Amino acid sequence: MPEMRKNPLSGSWVILAPERAHRPDSHISLGVEHHPHAEHHHECHFCYGNERTTPQEVLVYGRKDAKPNSTGWELRVVSNKFPAVDTEKHFCESCKNYMEIYSYAEGKSEVVIETPHHSKKMHNYSINELMLVINAYKERYIAISQEKHIKYVSIFKNCGIKAGASISHSHSQIIGIPIIPPLIKQELSLAKKYYKDKNKCIYCDMINLELKEKSRIVFENDEFVAFMPYASKAPFETWILPRFHSNSFEKISDLQIKNLAQSIKTVLYKLHETVENAPYNFFIHTSPAKTNTADFYHWHIELIPRTTTFGGFELGTGILINISTPEENAKILREIKIK
Amino acid sequence: MPEMRKNPLSGSWVILAPERAHRPDSHISLGVEHHPHAEHHHECHFCYGNERTTPQEVLVYGRKDAKPNSTGWELRVVSNKFPAVDTEKHFCESCKNYMEIYSYAEGKSEVVIETPHHSKKMHNYSINELMLVINAYKERYIAISQEKHIKYVSIFKNCGIKAGASISHSHSQIIGIPIIPPLIKQELSLAKKYYKDKNKCIYCDMINLELKEKSRIVFENDEFVAFMPYASKAPFETWILPRFHSNSFEKISDLQIKNLAQSIKTVLYKLHETVENAPYNFFIHTSPAKTNTADFYHWHIELIPRTTTFGGFELGTGILINISTPEENAKILREIKIK
Repeated sequence: MPEMRKNPLSGSWVILAPERAHRPDSHISLGVEHHPHAEHHHECHFCYGNERTTPQEVLVYGRKDAKPNSTGWELRVVSNKFPAVDTEKHFCESCKNYMEIYSYAEGKSEVVIETPHHSKKMHNYSINELMLVINAYKERYIAISQEKHIKYVSIFKNCGIKAGASISHSHSQIIGIPIIPPLIKQELSLAKKYYKDKNKCIYCDMINLELKEKSRIVFENDEFVAFMPYASKAPFETWILPRFHSNSFEKISDLQIKNLAQSIKTVLYKLHETVENAPYNFFIHTSPAKTNTADFYHWHIELIPRTTTFGGFELGTGILINISTPEENAKILREIKIK
Repeated sequence: MPEMRKNPLSGSWVILAPERAHRPDSHISLGVEHHPHAEHHHECHFCYGNERTTPQEVLVYGRKDAKPNSTGWELRVVSNKFPAVDTEKHFCESCKNYMEIYSYAEGKSEVVIETPHHSKKMHNYSINELMLVINAYKERYIAISQEKHIKYVSIFKNCGIKAGASISHSHSQIIGIPIIPPLIKQELSLAKKYYKDKNKCIYCDMINLELKEKSRIVFENDEFVAFMPYASKAPFETWILPRFHSNSFEKISDLQIKNLAQSIKTVLYKLHETVENAPYNFFIHTSPAKTNTADFYHWHIELIPRTTTFGGFELGTGILINISTPEENAKILREIKIK
């Protein structure tokens, strides 16, 4: 049974999910290094023919007139077989004493199987393929965020063993949780303060500054801009933001989905050309569900390549050491030509 | 030139230190996997005979009547050749605008070369060898913390590539910085609040609770107790605390150093017996320099094994998912017998 526990010395929750220790590690079990280009792997749970080894699908694109959990699909979303949170009980903050504060880890955990192709990576998707993925994010975001106890929906992707992916077949995850995460709370609080002081969105102002300064820009199109933040935490960290103010990812339009697909593909392609198969995580930061943040918050994607490792200084202080500068790295990515 | 930059959306500083990209990776260059038991490696900067390839030593134990930077030592502390911070200029928070807040990254960065033995790991040190290490931590802590602009001194160890160690020869690091780190600020604030409410130290109360509950205890002796925290962030995370109230590591007595050496050795030995050569970080959390925290803060060590990898959910939300429980893991370590 997944449990949440609160650290009285940091105020932060952790999720204890021992059942996740039973996840298969497909990098090892399927010998991914030996099949870097395989289109299909008969033992992979995310490949055609093995649909029945995953939990029931909650969304499918591309399959016509066939049974659920059969082949012929372009994208599937399924419940997570090894969830960190689930819906058996409700979240309820309880305490045995001041030190032991806990709850049932209520939530929804889903996996977006982005492509039937066993080894195709996101930087090689077509714009249409990537649009399907973003559309699935949006559909499931809307469904999960409307559930009664869900306060925040986190959409994220782990690519590569060093980025925490246990399955090599390309996928993303969506987890709805009953609390507002500390990193989101912090952003909301600083963005709200800025709005109160200046009557402007801090992210909009940051976009204007970056477009003016140019040195940290990686890519831009009509709807999105990608830049490396001034205080980058890691080499090649890149943020992708809608150029026009919008507090919540769920409001993304079809045209914006196309422009976002182009932005993500371009950034990932340039990263791959610079650091081959760089492991990375990306996640969407968006408004909490059922919360009015329309004026001051601005949804965005943060991409964090995992080419370096945080050590004891970072873990012990919370101050990150970046062995590069965003200006140098943005220049490198800007100069990569798209073939 | 190392620079600090502040993220306006989190309030956190990062350190940009591009010169650290030139660190050698001795795991690769010296082929450590092929020399797992070598006592000496002629190319290792931390082995006998290569003392002149490190910066000047600032502390040495065991060398009698010989020149600085020669062989015959038991432990050396040297300035870091690839420092993330240095003393050329002072810390001064400056801003180009609201988004671009920066300073010179002032500070002191030193490396404790813990043993002349090329491949000996801390869990195999004798108590006397480990006492030397802790004594070196104390001596350098006192020296660095007294420097004018230093507000906090972080003592930490990275063991293994997956824990961020670029050099395999066993060593620790000491970094003095001109700001109080965010994780320390947070602990101080919650500990101060607890003290104000209850007139007691939260860590002392936590120790009493853990000793009473027993299920998360890993080891105890007269002066120290090691337990896995209730809200553990990672499998086998273990905290080692002095049983008797003390806010600052620099006050540690010789007898306490002996008891701490026994505690660290026991915990690391049991961890190694459970997960062979588990990579890990440990760090000391202690009072900031020149700050009165005597009543409410309690110094301690946090050990974080790196057997799992944080992914996009953790990086994007700040909520950590632990695939184990501290109760199960503490039981496993308690049952390991010391040979």
